[in-house]
Amino acid sequence: MTQALARLPGLGPRSARRAVLHLIKKRETALVPLVAALQAVERNLVTCAVCGNVDTRDPCGVCTDPRRDTASLCVVEEVADLWALDRARLFAGRYHVLGGRLSALDGVRPEDLAVDALVARIAEGGFAEVVLAMNATLEGQTTMHYVAERLAGSGVRVMQLAQGLPVGGELDYLDEGTLALALRARRLVE
Amino acid sequence: MTQALARLPGLGPRSARRAVLHLIKKRETALVPLVAALQAVERNLVTCAVCGNVDTRDPCGVCTDPRRDTASLCVVEEVADLWALDRARLFAGRYHVLGGRLSALDGVRPEDLAVDALVARIAEGGFAEVVLAMNATLEGQTTMHYVAERLAGSGVRVMQLAQGLPVGGELDYLDEGTLALALRARRLVE
Repeated sequence: MTQALARLPGLGPRSARRAVLHLIKKRETALVPLVAALQAVERNLVTCAVCGNVDTRDPCGVCTDPRRDTASLCVVEEVADLWALDRARLFAGRYHVLGGRLSALDGVRPEDLAVDALVARIAEGGFAEVVLAMNATLEGQTTMHYVAERLAGSGVRVMQLAQGLPVGGELDYLDEGTLALALRARRLVE
Repeated sequence: MTQALARLPGLGPRSARRAVLHLIKKRETALVPLVAALQAVERNLVTCAVCGNVDTRDPCGVCTDPRRDTASLCVVEEVADLWALDRARLFAGRYHVLGGRLSALDGVRPEDLAVDALVARIAEGGFAEVVLAMNATLEGQTTMHYVAERLAGSGVRVMQLAQGLPVGGELDYLDEGTLALALRARRLVE
């Protein structure tokens, strides 16, 4: 059990041992409910065949929500990114999870990501805009440009997230790359 | 000496005591050169009457550099921001240091900042563009909008820095404010 817990992100061997001791000591109030919760997840969670989101139903709650804008599609690397953007209802359209990012180092090629599925989904029509919400990392941006190329000529507006100063960012503490981007992409004060 | 050192940003009472002991122990190799360096700064450093930069001459090296673009002016809160932007030669024009930011909490009003001097400098003509490079903090943005209002009708393009994802930013780790900005200011992939 210790080894299985230590494999979780954020838990090392030391905190895993402490968690195990806690679970053994509080068998009825901690261990039994945790097992039940994990079993429920294992039984009930499915990957949405439409967008790749993880939910208790397929198609997922986001794909079937009638209040969402059906003309706007947001493409993300991972389910965690979908949840981050949807946490505060920042994006009101639909999503598409690629399932990772292109990486020569990790051996992730285009066919390992849900890019063909995305192209097929766009070809079906109905979307006017695709927002490529990739991370501002080297691999994220490589993936973004690859997906943009695959969508060229599809007739949808292919958008990317703005880059620049983050909220609360102070010039003196930001890296030069971000300062350069913020200066280069400067815009008129409204 | 300990108290004077402890007042420096980044030095607490404990590290100030350690610094003092080090300086006393290495009187000839540490204390004497430090005193000389501080005296030289005290004697030689002046504030540039044109832009507010701190340099060994007035007008400063930035203001007198003939290779710089004389049509573009970058307005910053502090000298530290000027140095941050100029470290990597990110901005090739001239600067104007306000000397702070508007703050109701700290009692900083418009007349405490070099805004009148900025308006006068712009009125002299020659600048086509003013970049308001304020921090992306609440006070920085308040200052930015105040300065923009004061420059309205002056005939120059008043620009602001781009806001959005910083370089290396990952969606799952960024705050909702930054994600919202990055989504709202999305742009076409080139």
